[in-house]
Amino acid sequence: MSVSPGQTLRVLRERRPLVHQITNYVVMNETANATLALGALPVMAHALEEVEEMVGLAGALVLNIGTLSPQWVEAMIAAGKAANADGIPVVLDPVGAGATRYRTETTRRILSEVGVTVLRGNQGEVATLVGAEAEVRGVESIGAAGDAADLARTAARNLGLIASVTGVVDRVSDGTRVLAVANGHELLATVTGTGCMSSAMTGCFLAAKRDESLEAAAEALAAFGVAAEDAARDARGPGTFHANLYDALAALDPETLDGRARIS
Amino acid sequence: MSVSPGQTLRVLRERRPLVHQITNYVVMNETANATLALGALPVMAHALEEVEEMVGLAGALVLNIGTLSPQWVEAMIAAGKAANADGIPVVLDPVGAGATRYRTETTRRILSEVGVTVLRGNQGEVATLVGAEAEVRGVESIGAAGDAADLARTAARNLGLIASVTGVVDRVSDGTRVLAVANGHELLATVTGTGCMSSAMTGCFLAAKRDESLEAAAEALAAFGVAAEDAARDARGPGTFHANLYDALAALDPETLDGRARIS
Amino acid sequence: MSVSPGQTLRVLRERRPLVHQITNYVVMNETANATLALGALPVMAHALEEVEEMVGLAGALVLNIGTLSPQWVEAMIAAGKAANADGIPVVLDPVGAGATRYRTETTRRILSEVGVTVLRGNQGEVATLVGAEAEVRGVESIGAAGDAADLARTAARNLGLIASVTGVVDRVSDGTRVLAVANGHELLATVTGTGCMSSAMTGCFLAAKRDESLEAAAEALAAFGVAAEDAARDARGPGTFHANLYDALAALDPETLDGRARIS
Repeated sequence: MSVSPGQTLRVLRERRPLVHQITNYVVMNETANATLALGALPVMAHALEEVEEMVGLAGALVLNIGTLSPQWVEAMIAAGKAANADGIPVVLDPVGAGATRYRTETTRRILSEVGVTVLRGNQGEVATLVGAEAEVRGVESIGAAGDAADLARTAARNLGLIASVTGVVDRVSDGTRVLAVANGHELLATVTGTGCMSSAMTGCFLAAKRDESLEAAAEALAAFGVAAEDAARDARGPGTFHANLYDALAALDPETLDGRARIS
Repeated sequence: MSVSPGQTLRVLRERRPLVHQITNYVVMNETANATLALGALPVMAHALEEVEEMVGLAGALVLNIGTLSPQWVEAMIAAGKAANADGIPVVLDPVGAGATRYRTETTRRILSEVGVTVLRGNQGEVATLVGAEAEVRGVESIGAAGDAADLARTAARNLGLIASVTGVVDRVSDGTRVLAVANGHELLATVTGTGCMSSAMTGCFLAAKRDESLEAAAEALAAFGVAAEDAARDARGPGTFHANLYDALAALDPETLDGRARIS
Repeated sequence: MSVSPGQTLRVLRERRPLVHQITNYVVMNETANATLALGALPVMAHALEEVEEMVGLAGALVLNIGTLSPQWVEAMIAAGKAANADGIPVVLDPVGAGATRYRTETTRRILSEVGVTVLRGNQGEVATLVGAEAEVRGVESIGAAGDAADLARTAARNLGLIASVTGVVDRVSDGTRVLAVANGHELLATVTGTGCMSSAMTGCFLAAKRDESLEAAAEALAAFGVAAEDAARDARGPGTFHANLYDALAALDPETLDGRARIS
């Protein structure tokens, strides 16, 4: 195991991988801009007519169910299968799983039909998927009780993937090891789509470090958390923090990132 | 009647109601962020497969026809009927009513099939719906002639709802009383979706003050207008104003809001 | 030939033309806000039920294939044909042409069924459409080899339209003349949708200067580039640059614009 977000970021900025995102209407601009600011190339494409071809060009695929409808689900599954066939890592963000049956069932269906590399969700969403008790109110994270490390480990084991559970301290597990990531800032919870952005960042890091998905997933959250810490510095609230966040992602310094990342 | 935007905001931030929005592609991120900055929890969901279940979790439903298509209209009506059955307040924003027949007819259809609590539109849109003469050019408000107080009262009476007509001075009426709200800033007209945001804010306030819809609708506009006044202070144009607006919504102080609200 | 972006901007702000945009989910808010900041009125409408009526109210139509699906393509073609019938200028932004067959074929189909006034794309996209070699990775411009002036001229001739090829130096050609536009800033490449915004700006300028499309297309890029130069001045990265860009568009001064525009 080697954890070095700085090194992965360096590789990412050199290779500029394409990160194909089939995501929700609310955050498309935001995750595209976060991807671009970090140094990768975003592409949004959701038509059945092109998703398989597009994902073949990509270094990672990010699926996000934030504003679902049947045609989009079919496209996600087709793209996911094509990614699997080509060995391209897949991130799934189960936005609002637990809030409605449609979201929960769609997440389960994607998990059963597509080989997901990393499941990135908040505690409520991930707990729903392993059958634990969870409070989910819509799609925003509203804090959670329970042990996040246990939850991540259980989800990883039961679902056979890397579980990346974000919260005040993020926990990323492959079912055996659990990495904790303690970067971030409370202002993240005041901007819609920062969870979705962290899923996009996960896709970027996976594209740059395919062979160590656990480490890449943790590094992505650390890098995003460090950027949030920087963005908060002279923010006056959610709006200026949001604008600063792209500045901070673009300004992330591979040289100092490892020293600032709080991964344990 | 008791008008106290500060008190309603206090309740809203304590309860954090879910505000379900079926809105247009252009402003989804913006109304979600405004909702979150104010202190409520936004959720966007438009699939027929889940809208009825989602609205059952919500404190208010906001329908916005800014980028219409037939499937979305069906979802709006299904969600609206479910909201009605559960006694959940419904806000309708008839974006661009009067610009095309499709928008005008869809608005009328929603009004006939769904019990709308508050209709929030600009003068041109509301005038269209009561058969008055109106100049509508696309979806942006371009000023209006005529007496807005009369228009609000007439719309409220004819349509059997609270009419919330925004402009330089907003007028909110239940068909008998008319409240005027004189907060706001001219920079609001330079950012797309600020009207849609005011509809989202109306949903938030209704969720926190269900029994007095007229007052809640006026309070929402006052709170949003006060935030706009704050956001304008060190804005250098539409872009920095827009970022500042979320800062200002998050910073709204319930203690001073009543004193700053210009509701009469 | 008379090139005067300042004069065209003056006309635009006086007339406030409606610019109908059928564009992608990622940039809808951004192109609407850029249009509004410049001084025109944006409207997004994509339903077959209304596009023909809406475009009849507009001064220009902008088609953008950034997030395609079959229903949207039908709407684009219907709107394009209606625009043609009414003599309304049409801008086509072939986002990602060359990346997938679906995008390339859809672009060709639109070009064959709709009379396009200005094709606004990056080198890779435009090269794809004239059968030249091109490197296209997703939808972001990643630099290009080859002579852009030749490409613009060839595209204009072969496709029978104004070709507006953006890059470090933009080239706009009617097949005979080639105008070069040397305004802009490298931060434009760090924000998603700035290419789409330049297409929207092209629509705005065409609406204000219908009889000289070549000049209008070049003026639009110069004005947008000057705004980018202003926005970059105190930007700290992509996020603050993005916010500043709307400020700068709104602050564009018709008096000084001609002197700052680098059109040759």
